[in-house]
Amino acid sequence: MPATELPRLPVPDSPFRIPFDASFAADDVRSSTDYPSDDYKKRLRRLQEEMDALQRALYAGRSHSVLLIFQALDAAGKDSTIRSVFSGLDPAGVQVSAFKAPTEMELRHDFLWRTSLCLPARGLIGIFNRSYYEEVLTVKVHPEFLNAQYPGGVPDPDALWAARYAAIRAHEKHLADSGTLVLKFWLNVSLEEQYRRFLSRIDEPHKQWKFNSRDVVESHYRDAYADAFVSMVNETSRPYAPWYLIPADNKRSMRLIVAETVLAGLRGLNPQYPVVDAEAQAEFDTYRDQLKSSLPSTE
Amino acid sequence: MPATELPRLPVPDSPFRIPFDASFAADDVRSSTDYPSDDYKKRLRRLQEEMDALQRALYAGRSHSVLLIFQALDAAGKDSTIRSVFSGLDPAGVQVSAFKAPTEMELRHDFLWRTSLCLPARGLIGIFNRSYYEEVLTVKVHPEFLNAQYPGGVPDPDALWAARYAAIRAHEKHLADSGTLVLKFWLNVSLEEQYRRFLSRIDEPHKQWKFNSRDVVESHYRDAYADAFVSMVNETSRPYAPWYLIPADNKRSMRLIVAETVLAGLRGLNPQYPVVDAEAQAEFDTYRDQLKSSLPSTE
Repeated sequence: MPATELPRLPVPDSPFRIPFDASFAADDVRSSTDYPSDDYKKRLRRLQEEMDALQRALYAGRSHSVLLIFQALDAAGKDSTIRSVFSGLDPAGVQVSAFKAPTEMELRHDFLWRTSLCLPARGLIGIFNRSYYEEVLTVKVHPEFLNAQYPGGVPDPDALWAARYAAIRAHEKHLADSGTLVLKFWLNVSLEEQYRRFLSRIDEPHKQWKFNSRDVVESHYRDAYADAFVSMVNETSRPYAPWYLIPADNKRSMRLIVAETVLAGLRGLNPQYPVVDAEAQAEFDTYRDQLKSSLPSTE
Repeated sequence: MPATELPRLPVPDSPFRIPFDASFAADDVRSSTDYPSDDYKKRLRRLQEEMDALQRALYAGRSHSVLLIFQALDAAGKDSTIRSVFSGLDPAGVQVSAFKAPTEMELRHDFLWRTSLCLPARGLIGIFNRSYYEEVLTVKVHPEFLNAQYPGGVPDPDALWAARYAAIRAHEKHLADSGTLVLKFWLNVSLEEQYRRFLSRIDEPHKQWKFNSRDVVESHYRDAYADAFVSMVNETSRPYAPWYLIPADNKRSMRLIVAETVLAGLRGLNPQYPVVDAEAQAEFDTYRDQLKSSLPSTE
C-alpha cells in the first residue's frame, strides 16, 4: 500500500503535554506544580549546555528548523522565560519574534501572513512571543476586532472559528511535513500571582515600563480567555504540533520545564553535522598538503 | 547661527580605531597585539554582565538602536566572536544577520537593499556577519561580479567605487542621524594563522563542514584584499560610523577587545528606562489600591 503520510518528527512526551484527542477540560488547567525547582541555576545551566551543543549541530547540518510558540496571559513570564532559557545559545542560531496588536497593513492580509514572514529557516530556532494564536484567543474574547479583518462583513462566528482552527492545523502540519519541529507552550499563571506581578511592575522602577493598565482591564476577562484556551488547545494540540501547559506561578520550575521540553525536542531531532563524503575527504587531503607546505616548519 | 548638523552619538575611542582623516596606511595593519588575554573567562563574563544590563535598558527605553558590522577574511573568527561575545544577552534584543553571496533577486536591487531589510529597530542590537562592505571588498577584488548588477554595462571603475563609498557614507550618516549607533569591526588574521585555521577545519570533525576549498583559493588574493581594505576604511571610517581594526590571531584578546568596544559604545548611549511621568504615577496609585484589594490579605 502506498504511504499517505510523510514520516512524523518525534515530539517530546511530558506530563504537561495536552492530549491530542480533544479531551482536555477546564478542570485540567493548573498554575502550580510539585515539579522541583531546587538547584535551579546549576540545572538550567546544564540544560543550556546540552541545548547549545545540539543547536550547533542543527545550525551546521541545516536539516530541520525548530519553531517554539509562547502564549500566555499578561505577566505570566513569556519575556523572562525566553531570556532565561535561551540566552547562552549562539544568537546567530536563534531568532525571537514578538507579535503585538497587528498593524493596519498586517490586518489587510490573512491572519497567518505576518508570522509566516518570521518562520525559522532550516538550521535555526525561531521563537514566537505571541503568534497567530492571538487570533483565536484575544480576538475570540473581543470579537469586535474582527471588523477590521472582514470589511465585507464578519462571517458566522461558529464557521469562522472552525475555519481558523482548521487553517492553523493545516499550517502547522505543513510546517512539520517540511521539517520544522513545532512546540507550543502555554504559560499558565493564576489570577492571584498575576496581580502580584502587576503590583511588582508598579513598585519596581525597572519594571514600571512594563505596566499597562489595559492588562488589568484584560484580567477581568479571565473566564472568557479560559474558555477560548480550552477550545484552542483541544482544536490544535496534535502529534505534529503539541501544546504544553506549563504552570507559571513558580518561575523557576516553569523555566526548567520549558528547557527540559525543548531539549527533549532537540534530542528527538538528533541533529547531525554534515557528513563528509569520500570526494570531500580526498579534497581535504590535497588541501592539507598544500596548506602545510605553505606554513613555516614547526619542527 | 542655525545648526546644520544633528547632535552626534558618541562613539568609543580606542587604540584600535581607524582614523577619520584617511591617514590609515597598509603598514598600520596588524594581526597580533600585546592586549592581555589573561583571566579571559572572568573578564568576558564581567563585560557581558554589564552589556546585558545596558541592553535591557536599551530594549525598555527604545530610544536608540545599535548596528555592529563584522567583516574579515575567511577563518578570522567572525562566527565564533559573535557567538562568544553576544551569547548571554537576551536573544529577544539581539538579531544576527549573515549575508552570503547575493541571490538573483537581491542582485536586481541596489546594493544597500538587502541589508536595509535587516536593520535593527530602536531598542535592538543588530549584528551583521558580512554586509554591504562585501560590495567594495570581494566585488572590488573580483570585478567580474559587477556584470550581474549592471546589465546595461559596468560603469567606469573609479567613478563606480567612488559612488559606492559615498553611498555607504550617506547611508551610515542617515542611520546615525536616526539614532543608530554604528560600529564596524575588521577582524584581521595573518596568512599563517588563517592557514592553521583552515587545517584545523580539515582535521577536526565538527569543523569540517566549515571548510570550503574556495576559501583557500581566495587566500591567494590576499594582497588585492589588503588594497581594497585600506581604501575602504579610509573612505568610510568616520565619526558617525567608525571602523575598528581588531588583531585576530589571538581569539581571546580579539573577543575581549570587541566586547570592550561594544560595551563602551553602549555606555556612551547611556540608555534609560522609560521615565514615569506624573500622570502614570497617579495611575499606578489607583491600580495599586485596586490590585491590593483583590488579593487575599497576607497579614
